[in-house]
Amino acid sequence: MTNTDLHLKPIPFGRIDTVWFHYKEALDQVEGEIKRGLDSEVALINEVAQYTLVSGGKRIRPLLLIICANLGQSVAPIDERYLLLGSVVEFIHTATLLHDDVLDNAKNRRGQLAARNRYGNQASILVGDFLYTRAVCRVVSMENMEMNYLLASTCSKMTEGETWQLAHTSDFNLAEERYLKIIAYKTASLISASCKLGGVMASASFEEKEALAAFGHSLGIAFQVADDTLDYVADKNRLGKALGQDIKEGKMTLPLIHLLSHCRKKEKASLIELIQSGKPQKDLSSVLKLMEFYGSIAYAQKSAHAFVKKAKDKLRIFPASIHKEALQTVASYVADRDH
Amino acid sequence: MTNTDLHLKPIPFGRIDTVWFHYKEALDQVEGEIKRGLDSEVALINEVAQYTLVSGGKRIRPLLLIICANLGQSVAPIDERYLLLGSVVEFIHTATLLHDDVLDNAKNRRGQLAARNRYGNQASILVGDFLYTRAVCRVVSMENMEMNYLLASTCSKMTEGETWQLAHTSDFNLAEERYLKIIAYKTASLISASCKLGGVMASASFEEKEALAAFGHSLGIAFQVADDTLDYVADKNRLGKALGQDIKEGKMTLPLIHLLSHCRKKEKASLIELIQSGKPQKDLSSVLKLMEFYGSIAYAQKSAHAFVKKAKDKLRIFPASIHKEALQTVASYVADRDH
Repeated sequence: MTNTDLHLKPIPFGRIDTVWFHYKEALDQVEGEIKRGLDSEVALINEVAQYTLVSGGKRIRPLLLIICANLGQSVAPIDERYLLLGSVVEFIHTATLLHDDVLDNAKNRRGQLAARNRYGNQASILVGDFLYTRAVCRVVSMENMEMNYLLASTCSKMTEGETWQLAHTSDFNLAEERYLKIIAYKTASLISASCKLGGVMASASFEEKEALAAFGHSLGIAFQVADDTLDYVADKNRLGKALGQDIKEGKMTLPLIHLLSHCRKKEKASLIELIQSGKPQKDLSSVLKLMEFYGSIAYAQKSAHAFVKKAKDKLRIFPASIHKEALQTVASYVADRDH
Repeated sequence: MTNTDLHLKPIPFGRIDTVWFHYKEALDQVEGEIKRGLDSEVALINEVAQYTLVSGGKRIRPLLLIICANLGQSVAPIDERYLLLGSVVEFIHTATLLHDDVLDNAKNRRGQLAARNRYGNQASILVGDFLYTRAVCRVVSMENMEMNYLLASTCSKMTEGETWQLAHTSDFNLAEERYLKIIAYKTASLISASCKLGGVMASASFEEKEALAAFGHSLGIAFQVADDTLDYVADKNRLGKALGQDIKEGKMTLPLIHLLSHCRKKEKASLIELIQSGKPQKDLSSVLKLMEFYGSIAYAQKSAHAFVKKAKDKLRIFPASIHKEALQTVASYVADRDH
């Protein structure tokens, strides 16, 4: 937040909670649209999708979409397109969660059994597929080629990012640059698209839409870096799943990449041995001690904050407004959250 | 084939091979387009997709699309739209194969290791996702809303059919009617869409497009009924995988549905016990004996032929032509093939 903004009006959004509260009505409508979308003839689909979708997801993508649609010179009134698009980005996100949990053999998600542990891997794969196809149906029904293009290429990027990550499992020499590209694809692309879609809905200018996409891109990277850091240091109960899942899966994320490239050769060899043992999370505390010693957690947190700053900088072309402040609050929250 | 057709010109297509030969040039171009589509930055994606796509698939969907585009009053010249759409239906089909093999724990596919056995379930799930998203990107790039709608709703139906099938695993009282609806969704929908897309490309009339969709629908059901029958009685070497996979997975298909609803109570109880043992394919010969006794294989074969006839009937609105004859030959082949 710049001084100019501070000068213009009092800050209504000190905390993320007030942002959620401000957009609650619109988000509630999106929620209703999400539920209406789960109307398959196949009862199992509705059950699994409902279980996963209505389990306390933050709905940060629909929130960003709504805020971004109100940010520029032209503003999109809340209409059914919001609700449809809000449900679309959430369907896509949930489809990836369902597949991710199968890929990662996840036990829990958001403090409850992962869908795959309740309904099986098969149902999780298929309902992920279904949600994705339903999202495509919905965006197609809007008959807007720009939205079609944007979401189709976004989904393609997301699967490329996920596959890249898989290909680099236990790649102990993965460079930070490549890691950033992977998370840009797998995570930031949908967050960026959600922001840009808000601009498309509001018939924003090319420059505004590009700024929103760039904001979402940097924010998405910050979001994933923060997520990957929380996997080591979050409050376990608030996170809703066990810590150390990434290292257990051989997933190379920023804290570990930093540690492996800064620790001594002997320590690196021990770390690799620990990860290859298949149970590195049993000795997570020793990994954390090393990360503390070499400043790896602090480095990752600093990186997340730097991307948040980069994101906020992209908003400079937009006039000061309550929506801009809300967006800045969301951006800060992404790197500051503890779960 | 009607007598009128016979009268009009000699039949060039006695066998399916001659049909493949006739459309070889167009199909080769589709093949080139398929390969060009596997240009991800992520090497693993190209490798897995290439392994699965270039492993002797019959390309029956692109073939149907090409023939149907040439069937009506207006004809679509072979251009890049063919190639794109041909690759799109094949990408979608291959995406479902990759996911199916994970769902079914399949060992082999088309006489070689299933992708999941070579690259793992994770890569198979993700590359399936990728092919699907790439298909969506390609159809979106054609900027034709009718095609967008058709393919999006088709993909949604396919996942619904697959999930329905899963929900009815080991449902020993599954009715034939429900089975037919499941295979209409999971298999016939894409075959129907491939045929209709040919009509859309050729700017066919509403009536023609509906006829093509209905032709593909019945043909697709025939195709799956034949497939499900072959799982019991095919030439194993030509099929490229072991027999009895469906019964092993508790998949209720027409021969088994017929048998269970016609055999004696005691035999039904024994069959259920055998299936629930988890190794029913070990005693497949006794199942086959019962199927022979109750005419279950013959019943399924007859059903497939009836759907082929129903499909051919839908072609009556089209004038006699070499393409119509080709389509009739493909239709007959679908129910008569031995692998």
